[in-house]
Amino acid sequence: MELLKQKIREQGVVLSAQVLKVDAFLNHQVDPVLMQQVGVEFAHRFAGQGIDKVLTIEASGIAPALMTALALGVPMLFARKQQSLTLGGELLTARVYSFTKQVESTIAVAASHLAAGERVLIVDDFLAHGQAARGLATIVEQAGARVAGIGIVIEKSFQPGRGELARLGYRVESLARIASLEGGAVRFLD
Amino acid sequence: MELLKQKIREQGVVLSAQVLKVDAFLNHQVDPVLMQQVGVEFAHRFAGQGIDKVLTIEASGIAPALMTALALGVPMLFARKQQSLTLGGELLTARVYSFTKQVESTIAVAASHLAAGERVLIVDDFLAHGQAARGLATIVEQAGARVAGIGIVIEKSFQPGRGELARLGYRVESLARIASLEGGAVRFLD
Repeated sequence: MELLKQKIREQGVVLSAQVLKVDAFLNHQVDPVLMQQVGVEFAHRFAGQGIDKVLTIEASGIAPALMTALALGVPMLFARKQQSLTLGGELLTARVYSFTKQVESTIAVAASHLAAGERVLIVDDFLAHGQAARGLATIVEQAGARVAGIGIVIEKSFQPGRGELARLGYRVESLARIASLEGGAVRFLD
Repeated sequence: MELLKQKIREQGVVLSAQVLKVDAFLNHQVDPVLMQQVGVEFAHRFAGQGIDKVLTIEASGIAPALMTALALGVPMLFARKQQSLTLGGELLTARVYSFTKQVESTIAVAASHLAAGERVLIVDDFLAHGQAARGLATIVEQAGARVAGIGIVIEKSFQPGRGELARLGYRVESLARIASLEGGAVRFLD
């Protein structure tokens, strides 16, 4: 997706060989027009898959997931990282390890919002080690629903996430694939 | 906003005289079409105010804020509840007490994303005690920017938030104003 790559080139900041900061347009300040185009692109790539719902995790996944759900004409659901007083009811949960924050946390979705047989598209802002996407997939499968695919805004292709998800049989579509951040420069895979 | 009231009537669950659960369409599962209409409505109410940016707080504020920013043609910025490794740089912070969760937390925005003189529209999903909105306003003012208004999706008008914000001189626009949740029923103000 050319507009996304251009944004990464112009506004992304390489903090280390592992970390790309995109807080100017994706995960702190958010460019709504870019998000709209991201949503349209995911809807295009997963057209004809009979998607019933888009699932993501708070907080940075919400913007791209919402726009994807809008483009597909389905609801969006975001997993919570900690229980809120009003969440209540039966929960579907998964343990997720964050390599960035170096903590394990529980993510949760109300069981009432995922039905057996539904086809769920998982959307997230980043794919690195694939922990969040795997946790979300676990939740979908606990509900007896099916992962129709995984849409990623920025994939760090030099980290093992995509390989892990592909090995588990999931279709992964990433809008920007980064081959390397070595030497302070972003090099795309294609 | 009639569509919003209808959603609240049909899908809202009154958990107590203080708590309305709207996790079917606003703060867990999210209705993207409703959010789009919320965004258009806020853009309409604050038209001509020269809004430069929409500010909210993760996680439930992101969906309505993103759609408002899209409708206004400006960026959206969401405050973080805890520092992330990649946030870095100079931060503007405020302490916010959550009556729902009964904890005080620090919210933060990168100083680089708010400029002096900017006109900022604050958007949030709920207004109860007004703590989150006041914290966000504090951050805007630390940057030398100006709060152009506060847009709230659901206002619990029987709690003191609106009064506090009005007393501080902020213009508050709420799309649904709830007079009471007594007896398990939602009663709107108008």
